[in-house]
Amino acid sequence: MPGETLIGNKFTTSFGGKGANQCVAAAKTGGNVHIICRVGDDQWGEKYKEHLRTVGVDVTYAQVTKGTTTGIAQISVADNGENQIVIVPGANNHLSKSDLGNAKELIKKADVLIGQLETPYETTLEAFKVNDGIKLLNAAPAREHIEEILPFCTILCVNEPEASLLVHFNVDVSNIKKALNILLESGCDTAIITLGDKGAAYSLKNSGECIHVFSNKVTAVDTTGAGDAFVGALASFLVNFKNQPLHQLIGAACEYASLTVTMEGTQTSYPEKYIPFTRQYDYVTL
Amino acid sequence: MPGETLIGNKFTTSFGGKGANQCVAAAKTGGNVHIICRVGDDQWGEKYKEHLRTVGVDVTYAQVTKGTTTGIAQISVADNGENQIVIVPGANNHLSKSDLGNAKELIKKADVLIGQLETPYETTLEAFKVNDGIKLLNAAPAREHIEEILPFCTILCVNEPEASLLVHFNVDVSNIKKALNILLESGCDTAIITLGDKGAAYSLKNSGECIHVFSNKVTAVDTTGAGDAFVGALASFLVNFKNQPLHQLIGAACEYASLTVTMEGTQTSYPEKYIPFTRQYDYVTL
Repeated sequence: MPGETLIGNKFTTSFGGKGANQCVAAAKTGGNVHIICRVGDDQWGEKYKEHLRTVGVDVTYAQVTKGTTTGIAQISVADNGENQIVIVPGANNHLSKSDLGNAKELIKKADVLIGQLETPYETTLEAFKVNDGIKLLNAAPAREHIEEILPFCTILCVNEPEASLLVHFNVDVSNIKKALNILLESGCDTAIITLGDKGAAYSLKNSGECIHVFSNKVTAVDTTGAGDAFVGALASFLVNFKNQPLHQLIGAACEYASLTVTMEGTQTSYPEKYIPFTRQYDYVTL
Repeated sequence: MPGETLIGNKFTTSFGGKGANQCVAAAKTGGNVHIICRVGDDQWGEKYKEHLRTVGVDVTYAQVTKGTTTGIAQISVADNGENQIVIVPGANNHLSKSDLGNAKELIKKADVLIGQLETPYETTLEAFKVNDGIKLLNAAPAREHIEEILPFCTILCVNEPEASLLVHFNVDVSNIKKALNILLESGCDTAIITLGDKGAAYSLKNSGECIHVFSNKVTAVDTTGAGDAFVGALASFLVNFKNQPLHQLIGAACEYASLTVTMEGTQTSYPEKYIPFTRQYDYVTL
């Protein structure tokens, strides 16, 4: 409640943020990953860059904004699992179109360009216009009025609440095909809706293919960052396993994400030695 | 609300905690200050010790508890000033009676021993039994069932909500004398109730003296840590200005605290060049 002071029993800090999480997942699943971002000149900025270097993410285009804090989320978690989050974007808000200038060749030639909505939309839009590869937009956190970027998206990936905001009805497994078709009409080539422990469903504009890929069942301990693990892993599989059909790529990304929820933490729960395609992933055509 | 994610516009970290704040105020007002405390082996522990050294607090008896975090408070402040606080005591909870062993001579001979309730009560009680000087208890955060320590207190200092919890009615300026008398009956020699911008009132068991000392009027910007500034400054004035009557010592401590609320921050708002007793502080006998 406002004005209330509570005694907590644990305090931890950890590396997070959608963009960085996705980069770390992509790197840990074998991607050659570069991040274009901004951090602050506080105690966290250089530390985060060093951390990203350690897990194999190139930080040449991670710039420092003076006089700001690195993007941070203050998260309070109750005993019953309910949480309250305050996100302070800080330096994230300063990632501008002009930051893309130096990285333009990299952006243009990247096999996959991942974008999300914790950094300025206009900057992501500009980058999507430049890239010649697969443009993968994770439209999260949930946000409306992203019509302009959708025609540039090779793949749009959202979870159920994010999809609901875009299609204007409550999306779940029962109406997923309808939702996917509306997302396709907005201009993207492929739409994916992730469904937590139920896997993910996707639809292709060109072929009309609409498939629900199932996730393997696991005992969830901490689902934080599972969606980011899915996006990052999918990006690296799209590049490194071009001969696999999309439902198998998505199945592998679901499997990777499902492994991350069996451990505490966000990036620390992303496995480094995951081997995809050791089996066929189950799916049904919708 | 539970489950809500909000976007904040500023994130800062700063040194705090009642015990440390009081030490810093005492050091900045001319005290020769030692802190007996525990920090964690996280990124904050050594940094906090270094910070205390810088402002002149001896940290010989600041010990590190392995595998715990340094005591921390996560504070969310709304635009309308309402806040929510989650305190995670961490290493503070590990300050035990056995930690007093090495510091026993120091504790015994200290001219003033300050205690507060963010560290284990039993440890503070033990220290108060050892000290031969002025034992000043700031019974904060508000807590009941501290009857055992009160007879050892030379001075008990509380604010209105803390006093209310101890005397079992809502304390304000109108009933302050009654509240002070009840606090004296609990065993302390002197009881002080701080009244924010209205100054402070106190009563002495031996003489029956009961006085309300007024604070100078200032424009408040940030009242965080003002109570701790009062306690720390009072402690150092008690030692360094023994010839001043108590109502003047309290007047000076009120003046010092009032200066801290004119600036943002907690310890950073504590002036270093304050000169007390440049005037007579106003007071009335109750």
